[in-house]
Amino acid sequence: MSCDLKSKFLQVYDSLKSELIHDPSFEFDEDSSQWVERMLDYNVPGGKLNRGLSVVDSYKLLKGEELADDEVFLACALGWCIEWLQAYFLVLDDIMDESHTRRGQPCWFRIPKVGMIAVNDGIMLRNHIPRILKKHFRGKPYYVDLVDLFNEVEFQTASGQMIDLITTLVGEKDLSKYSLSIHRRIVQYKTAYYSFYLPVACALLMYGENLDDHVQVKEVLVEMGTYFQVQDDYLDCFGAPEVIGKIGTDIEDFKCSWLVVKALELANEEQKKLLTENYGKKDPSCVAKVKELYNTLNLQFVFEDYEKKSYEKLITSIEAHPSKAVQAVLKSFLGKIYKRQK
Amino acid sequence: MSCDLKSKFLQVYDSLKSELIHDPSFEFDEDSSQWVERMLDYNVPGGKLNRGLSVVDSYKLLKGEELADDEVFLACALGWCIEWLQAYFLVLDDIMDESHTRRGQPCWFRIPKVGMIAVNDGIMLRNHIPRILKKHFRGKPYYVDLVDLFNEVEFQTASGQMIDLITTLVGEKDLSKYSLSIHRRIVQYKTAYYSFYLPVACALLMYGENLDDHVQVKEVLVEMGTYFQVQDDYLDCFGAPEVIGKIGTDIEDFKCSWLVVKALELANEEQKKLLTENYGKKDPSCVAKVKELYNTLNLQFVFEDYEKKSYEKLITSIEAHPSKAVQAVLKSFLGKIYKRQK
Repeated sequence: MSCDLKSKFLQVYDSLKSELIHDPSFEFDEDSSQWVERMLDYNVPGGKLNRGLSVVDSYKLLKGEELADDEVFLACALGWCIEWLQAYFLVLDDIMDESHTRRGQPCWFRIPKVGMIAVNDGIMLRNHIPRILKKHFRGKPYYVDLVDLFNEVEFQTASGQMIDLITTLVGEKDLSKYSLSIHRRIVQYKTAYYSFYLPVACALLMYGENLDDHVQVKEVLVEMGTYFQVQDDYLDCFGAPEVIGKIGTDIEDFKCSWLVVKALELANEEQKKLLTENYGKKDPSCVAKVKELYNTLNLQFVFEDYEKKSYEKLITSIEAHPSKAVQAVLKSFLGKIYKRQK
Repeated sequence: MSCDLKSKFLQVYDSLKSELIHDPSFEFDEDSSQWVERMLDYNVPGGKLNRGLSVVDSYKLLKGEELADDEVFLACALGWCIEWLQAYFLVLDDIMDESHTRRGQPCWFRIPKVGMIAVNDGIMLRNHIPRILKKHFRGKPYYVDLVDLFNEVEFQTASGQMIDLITTLVGEKDLSKYSLSIHRRIVQYKTAYYSFYLPVACALLMYGENLDDHVQVKEVLVEMGTYFQVQDDYLDCFGAPEVIGKIGTDIEDFKCSWLVVKALELANEEQKKLLTENYGKKDPSCVAKVKELYNTLNLQFVFEDYEKKSYEKLITSIEAHPSKAVQAVLKSFLGKIYKRQK
């Protein structure tokens, strides 16, 4: 069933790609349509597709009955818009972070002959979203809201990325800038809106809802997205590399991780000094000292406590929602991430 | 009068900037609002502002009477959206081209502490456009068309930039890829749509027109934008550096300029060989050989002939337009660029 959905979802990708490289607003030639096709195949469909698929799942739960073929197509198209948005951010983030690999392959800008053209490719990815929306949703009563939604969420994500960049990169490495409050803002804006709120908001719009009536849903999803990123920060240090599929380097990279922020909160003066001296250094002995401090401060236990309390708080908020269908959507999201190991 | 307009226009910039750094969709703090303000002041208002101001001029000509204060504000706001779009492209183009200076100052990404954060700043500039449109035009009957217009023109510009990049940068320097047809496509998409069509299209929408009824206006403006870029290519080589404000380097940079494309069209086999051997080299003696060939081929005369014919063709098209007000708008654009020396 979910395998069926995934193959349907991938079929829709092929349709959308074909439309984009035949877009009548531009005169494509062989070279340019080939370039776009290769760029899309390299950057868009290679992830887990959770965000995209969750639009279809959410819409199904809202509807409560079997979807017609055209509804499936439209929900998939919206799901792909989120995947396109993600691809756009990742292509550009990798350039800014000077990353090497992404989803098990070299970052797009590392490919010979691509290089800095990747900046424009990122822009192209972003530009494809309104093309898809216009082609398939222009006549819908919720078209304007959809366009506004994508614009607002993109703005929030870019703003989150901005505070992350200016906190982490500008000036010297200065742990005093890190706090739970800046961590919450980075995570909420950079990740939660587009990964958690956006898929559900798309499904709600398709279902004919007014998003102004769903402020509570937004709050729950942003909370859930924050919890998701805290898990990510935790797994980067304490997850099993063979399970999470990478070796975490948040400590080496001086990341504003939930762990370092919690450690700073709990540390005494001496321990703070240890953090200041060792956080953000490539040297494995520095990394080991930071991890040792995390253990001394019992951060695994602190995390488990945070996880339990987040879960309970989220369940309470969800069950306060008047609609059973909306509750089902939110619980389905929560079920997918609670106590995840990867 | 036009000085009055410019100071009014700059006042509107201050209002828009202030709204953006207090946008309720994001929780700004001191650091982030300061960053955005500095980034905007550095990149947005420092150009000639021709594109932005021409929205106001065009709207005035369409209206044919004195504008109310709120109309002036809205026309200025649309003008600024085009300036924001331009700033976004320039910030990112400079990164891709590894440029050093822009508008008489170092490129934004060259500023210490900015570096690759400039990629995200480019994204922020782009994201400001829908924020401005939503804040000031959300209730207007032409709001959707405005948003669609900016999206379509941005897509066309990014596509033009893409073919420029893959023609000029990918693979070895290969003059056989250059032709009048690829030159026309690069120029039309990369420059003409956003510099010429977009300002007038904004004014038409504000005036209540349906853009589908103005395909002819679009064609004239795209033609005019192409002529404008051919002038640019010409002046890069034959303009007086003290007048155009820079020393042209299109020959050194292997640019797909109208001059090299015309030269290839007119050259015999021997002259083509000379071009192949000398075009795109930093060596001043190579550049001199190319310029000598341009003179041998009489490109100054060929350009003057092109200029005369373009002008006549444009005037004929303009005078075929049923509306005197639209004719006035188009003639005003043409008057500003015909036989320009800078």
